[in-house]
Amino acid sequence: MTLPGYIDEKTAIQKRLRRIEGQIRGLQRLVEEDQYCINILDQISATTRALQAVAMKLLGDHLSHCVMEAVAKGGPEADAKIKEAQDAITRLVRS
Amino acid sequence: MTLPGYIDEKTAIQKRLRRIEGQIRGLQRLVEEDQYCINILDQISATTRALQAVAMKLLGDHLSHCVMEAVAKGGPEADAKIKEAQDAITRLVRS
Amino acid sequence: MTLPGYIDEKTAIQKRLRRIEGQIRGLQRLVEEDQYCINILDQISATTRALQAVAMKLLGDHLSHCVMEAVAKGGPEADAKIKEAQDAITRLVRS
Amino acid sequence: MTLPGYIDEKTAIQKRLRRIEGQIRGLQRLVEEDQYCINILDQISATTRALQAVAMKLLGDHLSHCVMEAVAKGGPEADAKIKEAQDAITRLVRS
Repeated sequence: MTLPGYIDEKTAIQKRLRRIEGQIRGLQRLVEEDQYCINILDQISATTRALQAVAMKLLGDHLSHCVMEAVAKGGPEADAKIKEAQDAITRLVRS
Repeated sequence: MTLPGYIDEKTAIQKRLRRIEGQIRGLQRLVEEDQYCINILDQISATTRALQAVAMKLLGDHLSHCVMEAVAKGGPEADAKIKEAQDAITRLVRS
Repeated sequence: MTLPGYIDEKTAIQKRLRRIEGQIRGLQRLVEEDQYCINILDQISATTRALQAVAMKLLGDHLSHCVMEAVAKGGPEADAKIKEAQDAITRLVRS
Repeated sequence: MTLPGYIDEKTAIQKRLRRIEGQIRGLQRLVEEDQYCINILDQISATTRALQAVAMKLLGDHLSHCVMEAVAKGGPEADAKIKEAQDAITRLVRS
């Protein structure tokens, strides 16, 4: 199995994901305490931004490693990798 | 203290937030298992969409209750509530 | 025919839309001149932000007028207006 | 001067941008005719999606050409190109 592009960053990525998990639990607490809707919406905005930042980190690692290696080898695999990354970015932008 | 707009939907919203918490833990598992970057990116897209759907639910409840009540009372409070909702929506769109 | 919520802001909105039209023509000029991809992407980001700002303006006017009037009248029309606004916001967030 | 990544797609990109220019003029017409706010918001959503689709096209061309050539050459230039693309994608996602 090929190692993923983020292999050297696993600890940092897991740390960010655990922090986001904490933000989601914080959201549940706000709802439990009947906090004001707008406060909760703003916490959702902050959590979404944190999640998108992890996506950007992973995407950068993916481009720098997986895509670059495919390109270095050349052939149709390189084009397929570019197309795959482009589609994943489109899904991120639309989400 | 005024009850928040989502008061009748607390159970449903908490259920969604717990499911999103599960998705975040699922992301950590994918990273732990060195899964392929693009799979993880797509799971992040799905989680972001789920989070934005909760935001839209809360926003609808907020408009139907908090904002509507302010409007029913009239006065400058109504305009302030509209402006506040508009700003929260802008932050959601940008996140 | 009912007047739209933005009726008092038509001049300001048209001015913004004409400026955005100018930004789109600017994009065509950049492409014509074979400008660097990243410059063009950044101009697209700026144009998208300007377009979303017009949407937020229209949405605020819509909430302050159309939705508020429906709410003042009460009845099922009020709920329908809220639902309609919520759906339009969801489409904006996803675009 | 280096040719941009989209050089072989200039005609197709210009055609899309002219269609988007038409959509912006269509928006001005809707406002001029006092059309319903929600119709205009939905046209803005459609125009934003069209604009983001051009961005995705340009980004794919940029990755397949500019970034790939830098990677093929190797050295620090390759990393800089990846970082630059990542930053442009972040600005697109946030817009």
